[in-house]
Amino acid sequence: MKILVLNSGSSSLKFQLFLKDDLSVLASGLIEQIGDASSAAQLWFIDTSGIKQQRRQNDPVADHRAAIKVMSTMLQESGTLVDMGELAGIGHRVVHGGEAFQQPTFIDASVIAAIEELIPLAPLHNPANLMGIRVTMEHAPQTPQVAVFDTAFHQSIPEHAYLYALPYALYEQHKVRRYGFHGTSHSYVARQAALYLERPMEELHIITLHLGNGASAAAIKGGECIDTSMGMTPLEGLVMGTRCGDLDPAILFYLGRECGLDMAALDALLNKESGLKGICGENDMRTISEAAEQGDAPAKLALTIFCYRLKKYIGTYMAALGGVDCIVFTGGIGENSAIVRQLSCQGMERLGIVLDGEKNSMRQEEILEIQATGSQVSLLVIATDEEHEIASQTLQVII
Amino acid sequence: MKILVLNSGSSSLKFQLFLKDDLSVLASGLIEQIGDASSAAQLWFIDTSGIKQQRRQNDPVADHRAAIKVMSTMLQESGTLVDMGELAGIGHRVVHGGEAFQQPTFIDASVIAAIEELIPLAPLHNPANLMGIRVTMEHAPQTPQVAVFDTAFHQSIPEHAYLYALPYALYEQHKVRRYGFHGTSHSYVARQAALYLERPMEELHIITLHLGNGASAAAIKGGECIDTSMGMTPLEGLVMGTRCGDLDPAILFYLGRECGLDMAALDALLNKESGLKGICGENDMRTISEAAEQGDAPAKLALTIFCYRLKKYIGTYMAALGGVDCIVFTGGIGENSAIVRQLSCQGMERLGIVLDGEKNSMRQEEILEIQATGSQVSLLVIATDEEHEIASQTLQVII
Repeated sequence: MKILVLNSGSSSLKFQLFLKDDLSVLASGLIEQIGDASSAAQLWFIDTSGIKQQRRQNDPVADHRAAIKVMSTMLQESGTLVDMGELAGIGHRVVHGGEAFQQPTFIDASVIAAIEELIPLAPLHNPANLMGIRVTMEHAPQTPQVAVFDTAFHQSIPEHAYLYALPYALYEQHKVRRYGFHGTSHSYVARQAALYLERPMEELHIITLHLGNGASAAAIKGGECIDTSMGMTPLEGLVMGTRCGDLDPAILFYLGRECGLDMAALDALLNKESGLKGICGENDMRTISEAAEQGDAPAKLALTIFCYRLKKYIGTYMAALGGVDCIVFTGGIGENSAIVRQLSCQGMERLGIVLDGEKNSMRQEEILEIQATGSQVSLLVIATDEEHEIASQTLQVII
Repeated sequence: MKILVLNSGSSSLKFQLFLKDDLSVLASGLIEQIGDASSAAQLWFIDTSGIKQQRRQNDPVADHRAAIKVMSTMLQESGTLVDMGELAGIGHRVVHGGEAFQQPTFIDASVIAAIEELIPLAPLHNPANLMGIRVTMEHAPQTPQVAVFDTAFHQSIPEHAYLYALPYALYEQHKVRRYGFHGTSHSYVARQAALYLERPMEELHIITLHLGNGASAAAIKGGECIDTSMGMTPLEGLVMGTRCGDLDPAILFYLGRECGLDMAALDALLNKESGLKGICGENDMRTISEAAEQGDAPAKLALTIFCYRLKKYIGTYMAALGGVDCIVFTGGIGENSAIVRQLSCQGMERLGIVLDGEKNSMRQEEILEIQATGSQVSLLVIATDEEHEIASQTLQVII
């Protein structure tokens, strides 16, 4: 039997097929620009001889229903999935589970209704996730389907950390609170870290830094998340590719007054024109690091701000945890940018954080350990694998 | 000779009179509800026998010009200031000095114009401060007048800490950046701490926590501020009496969409209905602490959130400074609330912060030292004195 993992965006469908027994990857694919004439589908898979193959097709894909059919056909033609009957379960990534979902959840009509009710909290993401769930359930009505929520891991955060200092009625009546995101990734790498350190999760204080185009930090005590940097939405916290992260909220009033920006314009500004891109015009950390190395001042500034804000969150969560045993870097930037890791740990020797420059500059498929001898805090680079984690959580629900 | 310090609000005038030689206080006063029928003026002063006296008058005070006259008359009648000719200088508190003012500054026409230009950054405060300056200059045209800015001490904050991750043009064209406030207080208590510890400021890493109805934290390295929690406005950072402090900025978009709040309503909500008041309906920390002690759940929650957010900033600035030697509590709450000091330091033993419960519960006019034996970090309670600091800075400028 096999497990299929789906991540359905508003105009894209990402999928990955796993062997149920060992969760090895059989195939993975991406359909982009759904609904557009330029749509394209790609599939990578392991053929019967164990060789990695790639297929591509450029026929227009009208909608998500069509996308599911394209996926099925491509998987069938690749020989990795003959029919839906081979699937033990399908796992769906769902961005916002609000307070309703603290665990991966078997999907039925009431779960769909609950995810729908949460749309105001994630107006861009939840509708797209739901679309994926609905067409998949039509396509494979007999297959158990599981929703895995980006927010679920953070539901252990205590009240004093998830509440904002706003009128309490806004929480009660309008669900305004910190939810946090990237939960699947934070949870996965924290567990990997404990396994690697060969220490029971229960006794560890871990800070996980998921640094991709979106970025967030989490404080994990004894396996439970106690705080995270993203908030009610994914806008809060660290500097991101195009998102501002933490900001004096009164700047919005100022920009409204002084620049005549309305809410929609401010929303677009803070989410799409800010972050690294806002500071230096570029949102790819690789490009920025290279430019910074060549002396480009705006790129250097963007890199410095990104790392300073990261360092501040490390300190924040050291205080929240009452000391830290291990810091994990993950996500595209966390896994690949030695300079980001170096700058965000720099000058923290007195706090027990000492990075080894040489180890930090190495590359490794597996877990990379980069603290210097004598560092009180372990520093690990761990590749995240959200699809694997969704497959694993799906399996736990359907068993 | 004497020094007069003025703090002019939109409907109030606070003043304090010092002897120039030793900056001892001769008199202090407050005129409230200026422009209202209910206006009232109070004066405390030391009479010729060295006894503290109090005077009060309830005649309506029409405007700031009238307020200055009332102040002069009351000071004259008290015998502490016979005429303006006795003044070596007048120091004015000015809230926002933008990037123009890094130091206390002798006031001339160009300085007034510059403070006026900064009104968009502090639309409530700078006009009131300017009004005070103008009427005082008319009233005492021969006396040197000095502006002491709340933002000046924070002008040493480096670029990577004062810039937000917003389009850089917003900084260049619209001055959007972190300025910080309470600078006079942070600077004063940091200096007091160094004197008390008998260590040169140059080698100290200090975190100062100014906790009043407004609250802010500052990270001070070798005497220079390197970061602070208030931002472009006094809304950002710690939980305050009625202000929310740090907040996911996208909550504003959500509240706009879901509750139909416009910018003006959001501004009022975040500045006047949030913070401690928003959480538990009460903004006075004394009342909240008492209620919390008696088991009142909302009060307990407000107290816990306040202290947790404070603790997080301590961690943030430990990272920013690369370790801390001394943490200073000041302001009404910082000086008087043992429970706030206790909760915000709780569980930080691994980070070198160990509070002594017994010492913490003591009361002292002078500096109170509250860390336990063996604590790596000194914990001090120091009464702030912004008026004294303004007098002292005024003196430095006019000498």
